[in-house]
Amino acid sequence: MKAAVWHGVKDLRIEERELKQLKNNEVTVRVAWAGICGSDLHEYEEGPVFVPVNAPDELTGEVAPLTMGHEFAGVIEKVGENVTKYKVGDRVVVNPTITHGIKPEISDIYDGFSFIGLHGDGGFATFANVPENNIYLLPETLTLQDGALVEPTAVAVQAVKEADMKFGDTVAVFGAGPIGLVTILAAKAAGASKIFVFDLSDARLEKAKQLGATHVFNSGEINPNEAVRKELPDGVDVTFEVAGVAPTFKSSIDVTKARGTVVIVSIFARPIEWNPMMLTNTGVKVTSTIAYSPTSFQQTIDLMGTGQLKPQGIITSQIELDEIVQKGFEALTKDKTQSKILVKLSGEM
Amino acid sequence: MKAAVWHGVKDLRIEERELKQLKNNEVTVRVAWAGICGSDLHEYEEGPVFVPVNAPDELTGEVAPLTMGHEFAGVIEKVGENVTKYKVGDRVVVNPTITHGIKPEISDIYDGFSFIGLHGDGGFATFANVPENNIYLLPETLTLQDGALVEPTAVAVQAVKEADMKFGDTVAVFGAGPIGLVTILAAKAAGASKIFVFDLSDARLEKAKQLGATHVFNSGEINPNEAVRKELPDGVDVTFEVAGVAPTFKSSIDVTKARGTVVIVSIFARPIEWNPMMLTNTGVKVTSTIAYSPTSFQQTIDLMGTGQLKPQGIITSQIELDEIVQKGFEALTKDKTQSKILVKLSGEM
Repeated sequence: MKAAVWHGVKDLRIEERELKQLKNNEVTVRVAWAGICGSDLHEYEEGPVFVPVNAPDELTGEVAPLTMGHEFAGVIEKVGENVTKYKVGDRVVVNPTITHGIKPEISDIYDGFSFIGLHGDGGFATFANVPENNIYLLPETLTLQDGALVEPTAVAVQAVKEADMKFGDTVAVFGAGPIGLVTILAAKAAGASKIFVFDLSDARLEKAKQLGATHVFNSGEINPNEAVRKELPDGVDVTFEVAGVAPTFKSSIDVTKARGTVVIVSIFARPIEWNPMMLTNTGVKVTSTIAYSPTSFQQTIDLMGTGQLKPQGIITSQIELDEIVQKGFEALTKDKTQSKILVKLSGEM
Repeated sequence: MKAAVWHGVKDLRIEERELKQLKNNEVTVRVAWAGICGSDLHEYEEGPVFVPVNAPDELTGEVAPLTMGHEFAGVIEKVGENVTKYKVGDRVVVNPTITHGIKPEISDIYDGFSFIGLHGDGGFATFANVPENNIYLLPETLTLQDGALVEPTAVAVQAVKEADMKFGDTVAVFGAGPIGLVTILAAKAAGASKIFVFDLSDARLEKAKQLGATHVFNSGEINPNEAVRKELPDGVDVTFEVAGVAPTFKSSIDVTKARGTVVIVSIFARPIEWNPMMLTNTGVKVTSTIAYSPTSFQQTIDLMGTGQLKPQGIITSQIELDEIVQKGFEALTKDKTQSKILVKLSGEM
């Protein structure tokens, strides 16, 4: 079958690849659509970050070169011997997170995790073999293309749950990339009454406004704290840090009300200099999320199924697998108007 | 009357000072005992930190030179015209925190605060005039000397409340100075089952053990994370950062279990370098406290009154006002075996 395989930095190859043997607890998914994620981009530009190169990954048992892609949906083509919950023909979405599964759900992911499509073969291919436990049914109201958006949307659902947001709360979002955009959608769906969004790209801010931001600001041109306090003298209730650099981290605390919450959703590439007195002086609490729990993944499907979450607006481009390097990875690197690029595999809807 | 007056760095003078005029909403307290606090020491060594020197403080209306001392108790000598809750002869303790009082209690302190004894005349004097709202009755079970310990103990009570500690939780405390020590006591009183304490001074660690720490370690000699994980592979539930430097901040996160809580109790004198991924990788939440709410202050008195909190063990020295510079401030600077030094004013018990 054809697959997009990570061999090294800037070395993603479209090549013929054998589908690994189906295990008894796995299903073969004929992939319909797969999204390109920011972490795919990191592996491409400056990896390996997660991709195992020297030894097989502890949880997947796989090692590079490997097929990328962890945001995907498709139709079950084949089921392993011990699979009981799914059958051939089921329309499904993959939760790519593999954990040890020993700890309670709330802390399981911190006990170590691997990702289908980063630590083992993923969805940029005609077929993918996936453990039954990582498979979720798509409701009839969602297309297979919608299914490819579940994974990034689940990140936002987890972040909003972590914020302990209350109906009517005011919100700030730093960073209007794909995860920032779905965070806006999730905050709105949870009842945020005002959503302030900051980014350095006017194109992204325009998108943010289309998706429900009530106030957007180019943080290269204004002081975020002044912008927020002009509307809300006490600051916002909850802030999502989806940019991952020192200035946005500090601004996130600045714009938040006394005793409010900052949720770090981003991945920080390097340390920052910062004075913890920023918390002591404001009582702001800092928490974080990484990925999502299985419960949040299912809730995301349910909220998309009812139409409460409609992330389709983040799609900026749909491409073929053969185009994934130039029109996918390179486009995302160079063109800030790009947000979510979906790769068509079988292309079924 | 005689008072210890801050004139500048290393310039604390014992001198004759006029008691300022009693306002209608104030009482005159004949001070019995007053404790020296770490922030007093900061003002002495490297101030002004809080002390207003160029213009009168917004909330107290006072300016240096001023009488220090904000941990004190005594007997009411005189009451202002409008005072209704207290009478001459009442044994009382002073909550030195003055706020605007406009916001709800939970966020009031973050709306700005001043301290009796730092932003205005305090308790290192024969008498102090204090607003009725800052006065709390001492129960019969507590001496006036006990009363001088309420304020630092309230800091610890607030910190433990902030940690959302559950009965039986395991705890780490970084820093075994006076506030670290009362934090051990408060955590114990709240039902902590194991208390790991880290400090660079063996003398302080010895004290920590006397006051209820179950495990003490010199963090100059061992790796705190290894020490904790040896006993508790998952880490502690709650950590109190009572040291205020980069290594203890990082260790605080390290030793805490996935999804546990770090409470910053200390004052950080300077920024630190740190990667927020320490939170993303562990799910550890960071929160902080500054001082205490009026509710926590009263709860501290009540818990001391019942004997659930017995902070008397932190006292290492009792001195006369005339000795406050050499046997008080200088001793605390030079001698790490010193913890809480109490100054005897009227000396009533």
